[in-house]
Amino acid sequence: MNGADMLCDVLLVNDVDVCFANPGTSEMHFVAALDRKPRMRCVLGLAEGVVTGAADGYARMADKPAATLLHTGPGLANGLANLHNARRARTPIVNIVGDHASYHLQYDAPLTSDIESLARPMSHWVGRISGPGDVRARTEEAYTEALRRRGVSTMILPADAAWGELSAEMPVPVARPAPLPVSADTLSAAARALRSGKRVAMILAGKALRAVALESAGRIAAATGAALFSQTSDRTERGAGQVAARPVPYNVEQAIHALREFEVAICVGGRQPVSFFAYPGKPGTMLAPGCEVIELASHENDLAAALGMLAEEIGLRKDSPFVPNRFTQDQIPMPTGPLNADSVCTVVARGLPENAIICEESITSGGRLTTLAPGLRPHDHIPLTGGAIGEGIPLAVGAGIACPDRKIVAMQADGSGMYTVQGLWTQARERLDVVTIIFANRAYAVLQGEMRNVGVNDFGRNARRMLDLDAPDLDWCSLARGMGVEAARAETIEQFSDLFDTAVSRKGPFLIEAII
Amino acid sequence: MNGADMLCDVLLVNDVDVCFANPGTSEMHFVAALDRKPRMRCVLGLAEGVVTGAADGYARMADKPAATLLHTGPGLANGLANLHNARRARTPIVNIVGDHASYHLQYDAPLTSDIESLARPMSHWVGRISGPGDVRARTEEAYTEALRRRGVSTMILPADAAWGELSAEMPVPVARPAPLPVSADTLSAAARALRSGKRVAMILAGKALRAVALESAGRIAAATGAALFSQTSDRTERGAGQVAARPVPYNVEQAIHALREFEVAICVGGRQPVSFFAYPGKPGTMLAPGCEVIELASHENDLAAALGMLAEEIGLRKDSPFVPNRFTQDQIPMPTGPLNADSVCTVVARGLPENAIICEESITSGGRLTTLAPGLRPHDHIPLTGGAIGEGIPLAVGAGIACPDRKIVAMQADGSGMYTVQGLWTQARERLDVVTIIFANRAYAVLQGEMRNVGVNDFGRNARRMLDLDAPDLDWCSLARGMGVEAARAETIEQFSDLFDTAVSRKGPFLIEAII
Repeated sequence: MNGADMLCDVLLVNDVDVCFANPGTSEMHFVAALDRKPRMRCVLGLAEGVVTGAADGYARMADKPAATLLHTGPGLANGLANLHNARRARTPIVNIVGDHASYHLQYDAPLTSDIESLARPMSHWVGRISGPGDVRARTEEAYTEALRRRGVSTMILPADAAWGELSAEMPVPVARPAPLPVSADTLSAAARALRSGKRVAMILAGKALRAVALESAGRIAAATGAALFSQTSDRTERGAGQVAARPVPYNVEQAIHALREFEVAICVGGRQPVSFFAYPGKPGTMLAPGCEVIELASHENDLAAALGMLAEEIGLRKDSPFVPNRFTQDQIPMPTGPLNADSVCTVVARGLPENAIICEESITSGGRLTTLAPGLRPHDHIPLTGGAIGEGIPLAVGAGIACPDRKIVAMQADGSGMYTVQGLWTQARERLDVVTIIFANRAYAVLQGEMRNVGVNDFGRNARRMLDLDAPDLDWCSLARGMGVEAARAETIEQFSDLFDTAVSRKGPFLIEAII
Repeated sequence: MNGADMLCDVLLVNDVDVCFANPGTSEMHFVAALDRKPRMRCVLGLAEGVVTGAADGYARMADKPAATLLHTGPGLANGLANLHNARRARTPIVNIVGDHASYHLQYDAPLTSDIESLARPMSHWVGRISGPGDVRARTEEAYTEALRRRGVSTMILPADAAWGELSAEMPVPVARPAPLPVSADTLSAAARALRSGKRVAMILAGKALRAVALESAGRIAAATGAALFSQTSDRTERGAGQVAARPVPYNVEQAIHALREFEVAICVGGRQPVSFFAYPGKPGTMLAPGCEVIELASHENDLAAALGMLAEEIGLRKDSPFVPNRFTQDQIPMPTGPLNADSVCTVVARGLPENAIICEESITSGGRLTTLAPGLRPHDHIPLTGGAIGEGIPLAVGAGIACPDRKIVAMQADGSGMYTVQGLWTQARERLDVVTIIFANRAYAVLQGEMRNVGVNDFGRNARRMLDLDAPDLDWCSLARGMGVEAARAETIEQFSDLFDTAVSRKGPFLIEAII
């Protein structure tokens, strides 16, 4: 066997059995090894942003890492934006980057670059395999670190480490790293705050937004009057019967207003909310001045357990009550008037099937769905996390591979959708059950708002040329069909509603271009 | 005025008047400043690979840098692959990356990342503006370094440096840096070698492949019997009446065979050729063992002047003869048989208009055109340089902006074309005179060859899933129309020939999908 075989064996014995890939010449031995391992599902992306975004979506839904296969520094570079999102989502990924044979680096061949420097900003762990004999230990380390730190492990695989022979040995599963224990002092401090009569906000993120954790948070809230907020995270289980946490608004003023009354913030799975961007003369943090911040637990803790312990610490029984979201989906009236972002969201909310997965990259358009979400059939929500746009379509790819029996509804802005539009082809090839809804407003609408935020209301030619997506208009149906995805356009609520019902009632990828 | 105004003024006064852009929130003040400068042509790319690849193509043809506008670390990351190609092409670019306001970095907001670490591997110079008062000096430095080093200057623009006010002062043009002088000793050594009777190869790259430089090389070759080779470079002026240099083959064995007889290699504008990748048991360099290498001049020298001085050094008069390429374009017979890569190239060669610009990213398909090129009407050839695929369509964008009166013929493989397919929209929006020819072989054909190189001839399911682009086939005409570019498919030589003639005879973007 060679190093590449060993790499595959270590992945497979640790149940990493999906590899999102876009290989190049330096990875040919790795490809040949994968070809000898039919248990590994290899999923091709036609651009690396699809590969890494899909790996992110997959792990968010499968709760285990996928591997990736990228080609040298430029291949990694193309995938970095969605690795950035994965890093912010704290998604475990075993990100494998092929490189030249180690003795070839001296020649500075055209594709040579400093892969470590590229990888570090978007990785929690970076390592380079030193030779075939190092493949097993390094791959086990990459895998373990992805789990332990909940994040991106980037492992560099030189071609000669892949093709070098080694003596056959069958790897065994590595021990899964245990989460860090929650500090007893912090637990006591949080419990004291909750019992103090002060106004407390519990700000949840990451795995604190799964149903079991939310239920504990909901019991604490019901008993103490604490308010529950959520930060943008990898995955939220939401809908009727669950506990709702209110998203911290993106807009700085709105966020400050929403948080103004709280004297204590207990952060579970994250730090205190900060503004996405700085604006002249506006603050960068959102909590009221003097608000005490208690960081109860981080992503390296078991967040559900931490919330359970906190409930116990304040004396709640395991069956203490919480206020579940009421089911209101069947009472949402069909919208009237023009097709716009809100009416699209309302139609989707009405028709959302049980157990759906909503992939969301629709910053200026998706608000109405967030408002309606608590009353819908239980579903998962996986949004863009790190602000690096171009993740929606790949997230849907990954979720579709992870959960073949669930309907994926991708709410996708047109501007960001174009970044990784190539992912539609992978949806077609893998026959994923994804309905993609394009909010075709033909502008970087978020930026038009931001221009107004900086005081520019009259856009001249140069601003319009950079913020509008018109002249020519994109034809999303044509783009989708070019990659083998059925598609149709909606210009009225009736058309959109009919198309959405059809898309939900059948299997396979479908795209609806909603002209709003 | 604010820092962003000053930045624009420094660019414009130094004749940098094109900005390829994909802005985000942290760049809104820069966008607003650009909006106040109608002399700056702002060109939007719907993904950053288009932005940077276009900046590369533009500077190769305009012989002056463009600016870019990218959004924080992830925006830069998306553009790095084509910055890598620009770095290898030694293309001057003023690559501007917006970042958070400096005081906001402490909060580690979602889009925060280590931009310097990302930028360094693909840049010749990296600098961060420290505040509004630093904008002028830093921008002048970025511009000067791009010219002096012939390469990528990455300048990080914090939002507060852009919006900060400063006292109005009108910048003046900076002195263009003079090229480094060529060493007299090296010149003598090269002249001695040429007169020694030894077999000499002159290996040309970069600006040594422009007509004037090639003519000097041709005079030296005619007088001494030296052979002329070229390395993959930013731009080659080629065709009838010019001097041809033979490309060093990509294939290692073929390259070693082509170079086996030479005792001396004189490198002009580059180093000795090395193999693109390492293969088990094959050498990494291509010159014969013991071949003496003389590096006459680097990209920081004036390569045309260096070749002129070398001709003088060996005693040639300025009008000493060279062997110009004969015009044979009108004698190329119309191909017969099936439409394949060779017949596509042959039809293009027959119909190539005078002064065309060929953008080439067709590694496995373009060989026949290279063979025919010396006999064609004079034209420019700008190929992929650094091996980071996904540059062909953006190169055509940049060339089209730089040279609106010349026909751009983009020879584009399908696999690499998908990486930055978004560039077709910019071609439509800017009404560029580009005919794109897609070699639709529906595979990563280069990788299928490389798999055979590593000894795998029977591809199993996983290998096929990673190396074939079928199931579903891409429909390039649909993709092009989705972005506003007219397109048609050719399945026979007759169809292709008719379409190519039509495309050449009219203005504006057109795409031909050649099914081969």
